Amino acid sequence: MSHPDIPHTIDAFHRGRFHLIQPSARGHRSGIDAMLLAGAVPDDFSGAVADLGAGAGAAGLAVVSRCSRATATLIERSPIMTDCARLSLALPENSAFSGRCEIIQADVTSTGKARMASGLLDNSFDFAIMNPPFNEAKDRATPDALKAEAHVMTEGMLEKWVKTAVSIVKPGGSIAIIARPASIQDLLAALQRRFGGLIIVPIQPRPQDAAIRIIITGVKGSRAGLTFHPALVMHHETGNEFTERAISITNGIASLF
Amino acid sequence: MSHPDIPHTIDAFHRGRFHLIQPSARGHRSGIDAMLLAGAVPDDFSGAVADLGAGAGAAGLAVVSRCSRATATLIERSPIMTDCARLSLALPENSAFSGRCEIIQADVTSTGKARMASGLLDNSFDFAIMNPPFNEAKDRATPDALKAEAHVMTEGMLEKWVKTAVSIVKPGGSIAIIARPASIQDLLAALQRRFGGLIIVPIQPRPQDAAIRIIITGVKGSRAGLTFHPALVMHHETGNEFTERAISITNGIASLF
Repeated sequence: MSHPDIPHTIDAFHRGRFHLIQPSARGHRSGIDAMLLAGAVPDDFSGAVADLGAGAGAAGLAVVSRCSRATATLIERSPIMTDCARLSLALPENSAFSGRCEIIQADVTSTGKARMASGLLDNSFDFAIMNPPFNEAKDRATPDALKAEAHVMTEGMLEKWVKTAVSIVKPGGSIAIIARPASIQDLLAALQRRFGGLIIVPIQPRPQDAAIRIIITGVKGSRAGLTFHPALVMHHETGNEFTERAISITNGIASLF
Repeated sequence: MSHPDIPHTIDAFHRGRFHLIQPSARGHRSGIDAMLLAGAVPDDFSGAVADLGAGAGAAGLAVVSRCSRATATLIERSPIMTDCARLSLALPENSAFSGRCEIIQADVTSTGKARMASGLLDNSFDFAIMNPPFNEAKDRATPDALKAEAHVMTEGMLEKWVKTAVSIVKPGGSIAIIARPASIQDLLAALQRRFGGLIIVPIQPRPQDAAIRIIITGVKGSRAGLTFHPALVMHHETGNEFTERAISITNGIASLF
């Protein structure tokens, strides 16, 4: 199960309640975004979560670490990242919840029979969470191919990701997405007529700052209207301290809702 | 110029710096929303503002009352409301800026030659502001036809309003819209490929409340991305006092940006 070719780190999340093996120099390194995304799953949630484009599994593990009645399926196409996830699940530090996790190596954008064959069945999950690549191809290129794969959003990608999500989530099931504010037009267009009761939560670095991320949640098939919740503010007006709410959510003590 | 058939009120805005004649019992009564919308025009703005669906003219008058180098064109299809606007402009209390206002009785959704004939020429304004009807037809019906006309949003209406705005605004000119959060999908779809550099400002009753309105601004032809500004919060966590920022903006002391 070990992967000696890839130098890796073991990072503690949720104040040591779970650990994550990640490539140390290459690929996407998970952090705050994954913790915030996981925070969109309510504390009392019970059921199956699909972490689409899971990377090393940070968001999915954060959900099962906090929600004791949740199971997680980590869906990731990169074999290096699924290897990391597999190694993480084998860590004794993660034994409290690793039995509630599985890994599917698959491309989130696969469709039809290919998707089904990988194990992503229709109407089989209660909640889909996703932190899709968000750099546009025109953004500064990274020389790291593994990182580029995780970070670069290609044309129509959000549409494909949301389409997979709406297929695999049961009617009445939920979706949560963390994205850049600039993606909102594409996201809302992709969600329309698929997920309703949308809630947008802006994530602001400080009270006086523009949002750097948004979290959008929705319910499959709902016809309820869209609402804007108050922003989650990460830091105070000055200084480096996190706000109490940011500390609670990023450490898996409380959910976003 | 008087309109004895319609009982009306004269209401002071901006701490008495301008006055507005409105039908007292019928039609849309302007207030906070119009003041917030006007607040989206920067203090140092200079140029021609089109107030689309101006009603009695509250937002347009609020702009010229605060911005000494702005002119306003109040565009409204209801003859009762344009009569009110005309009476307002004739009030001695408004003489400081009434010379910088004109009224066009026209339907905002008119197109092509009909729009041109009413005086709404292509590329002729520097800023379009609009507070479009926002009740869906399925919402609780009002027995007041004049009010219903101002409040009920019909299918495709936002698209038509934004289309008129992008036609009459000069390249590089601006738009500002106040709307319900639930309208954001339709609004963003209408704005796409017409206005860029969009800024969304949620308006929250209190720090802990979901937004009840959003203000969206944009620049014609801009390719800049979308940003979420911090919410404008109207009241404190408890009590009826307005916040300092809400007081400044609604009284025409400061702009929103």
